[in-house]
Amino acid sequence: MTDIAESANVLLKNDNYVLTTHLNPDGDALGSLLGLGLALLSAGKNAVMVMPHPVPATFQFMPGAQQVKKVDVQAKFDVGIALDCTDITRAGEEAQQVLQKARNLINIDHHISNQYFGDLNVVDAQASATGEIIYDILYEAKIPITSDIATNLYTAIVTDTGSFQHQNTTAKCLQTAAFLLDCGAEHRTIQQHLYEQRSLGSLRLLARGLESLSLNEDGRVAWMTVSQDLLSASGATVDDSDGMVDYVKSLKGVEVGILFKEVNSGETKVSFRSKNYLDVNQLAAHFGGGGHERAAGCTVNGKIEDIERVVIRKTEEQLAVKNCGGPGR
Amino acid sequence: MTDIAESANVLLKNDNYVLTTHLNPDGDALGSLLGLGLALLSAGKNAVMVMPHPVPATFQFMPGAQQVKKVDVQAKFDVGIALDCTDITRAGEEAQQVLQKARNLINIDHHISNQYFGDLNVVDAQASATGEIIYDILYEAKIPITSDIATNLYTAIVTDTGSFQHQNTTAKCLQTAAFLLDCGAEHRTIQQHLYEQRSLGSLRLLARGLESLSLNEDGRVAWMTVSQDLLSASGATVDDSDGMVDYVKSLKGVEVGILFKEVNSGETKVSFRSKNYLDVNQLAAHFGGGGHERAAGCTVNGKIEDIERVVIRKTEEQLAVKNCGGPGR
Repeated sequence: MTDIAESANVLLKNDNYVLTTHLNPDGDALGSLLGLGLALLSAGKNAVMVMPHPVPATFQFMPGAQQVKKVDVQAKFDVGIALDCTDITRAGEEAQQVLQKARNLINIDHHISNQYFGDLNVVDAQASATGEIIYDILYEAKIPITSDIATNLYTAIVTDTGSFQHQNTTAKCLQTAAFLLDCGAEHRTIQQHLYEQRSLGSLRLLARGLESLSLNEDGRVAWMTVSQDLLSASGATVDDSDGMVDYVKSLKGVEVGILFKEVNSGETKVSFRSKNYLDVNQLAAHFGGGGHERAAGCTVNGKIEDIERVVIRKTEEQLAVKNCGGPGR
Repeated sequence: MTDIAESANVLLKNDNYVLTTHLNPDGDALGSLLGLGLALLSAGKNAVMVMPHPVPATFQFMPGAQQVKKVDVQAKFDVGIALDCTDITRAGEEAQQVLQKARNLINIDHHISNQYFGDLNVVDAQASATGEIIYDILYEAKIPITSDIATNLYTAIVTDTGSFQHQNTTAKCLQTAAFLLDCGAEHRTIQQHLYEQRSLGSLRLLARGLESLSLNEDGRVAWMTVSQDLLSASGATVDDSDGMVDYVKSLKGVEVGILFKEVNSGETKVSFRSKNYLDVNQLAAHFGGGGHERAAGCTVNGKIEDIERVVIRKTEEQLAVKNCGGPGR
């Protein structure tokens, strides 16, 4: 039995589920959580969607977002489902406790760095998004995909593929997106909430970030820094910097784009994007993070200037490694 | 017989074709031209692709771009094909002459404002791009879609849908894009040339444009101005401002985003984007332009400051019309 078939089987055979996703959830995390959660509910199951923090404002439009609950560490469930988590710790301490108490732990993810921590692991690094895997599971389980479920899964795919621009965009992922529109995914609503609700502050942040773009000597590494100072000067929040790393990567000749985001003084989130040959999953892993070959991230403690220096040096080192697969290297 | 079937029939029955598209060609114009042109060539036809100007640098990567020729007004053809042209004049004077001399003129387009100037008109305003219609015609004609043809048609769709973000994104368009990837469309190459070859100048232009963003009193109209002065101060070209209008529209609360682009002193291109209810095709038509309900444009002569004032006033007027379909209006 394939993992998809086995997980479909588990979803049909049990009655009592808890679902969660990773901290600082993105569109795929929430889309998978809400998509699968609503599907289980519609199939008459008890399904509790939990997260340690409330759903971020940008994603409040997603159907079912109001039904996400705080984690109750006392509660017990037959099946725990971790979505889009490379590692169970990504769910946060409380959710981890609840998941581990469940009789059966299912790990559904599409990160290449996944740790296979479940009793059943449905991990497909070829999938554009965890939401794409959820679609396959629901299809296999013959659970009807309502408009609400479709909206969540479409959001998952569209956010994790950068609106079908990233390299994880496959024929299958576009095909799935087409099916989801046919199932009633609200394309217009999704686009509007994801891309057309920008604040003046966020556009100012982008403007100033772009002005500060830096390049290393050979032009293969570019970076942008979003400090707490820049955030307050722009009237923007740290979430407003989401996606800014793609601008860094968009520069001609650049192989690796890096965004340094000062979450608070002493803690910086680093996002990496590469174009053709540098494995940034490995690079991020060096700093305790991970992700995908062409898109990864990590969180580093220390002064932001120091972090910049160390990370850029490490990136240049990796690029210099003879057999990194780069052209003519 | 449907228009698609009839046009497929014409493509199979004749031997000698001239194809062209509109001036200042975008990805859909070129993708349709090259996609259909290469398909006819591969089917053993004589097919000449003509344009009054060379293919812009951004699109030189498209397969067949080197085969596009200058218009020879003396040449004669059985069939003339105008692609993505609302009106035959959009092809430029010389190409228009050649098209009109052909025994049979086919007009293939997806603009709602199309003028039905052909002997056969394949006009589908529901199609996301003219390239999507070309796919249907080739499918009907059973002309195999090679990787090169697929790359062109995918480029057409991805550019005209703003990477599947605009409202013309349908299940059918995603499905077609999925088929095209299956046919070997080079997703990575396309993305790289369209979105990852930016110059520092173009990012600086974006930064400065964003800083200058203006809003009208009620916040429903926003605009950005790209003057010749701004272009030279940023080290950018006028083509670098493509897509900047989407940032204007992205602001929360804005219904209409406008980009004023000073092509040269005395001539300004105006791009309109609307979110929910204003028909910008009508608005652009007022200034002699056209396009689609949610995306349109026009070219206006005069001083850019005067044009701004007049266009913004007209936009506000249209928004104020009681029955424009706006919420609570």
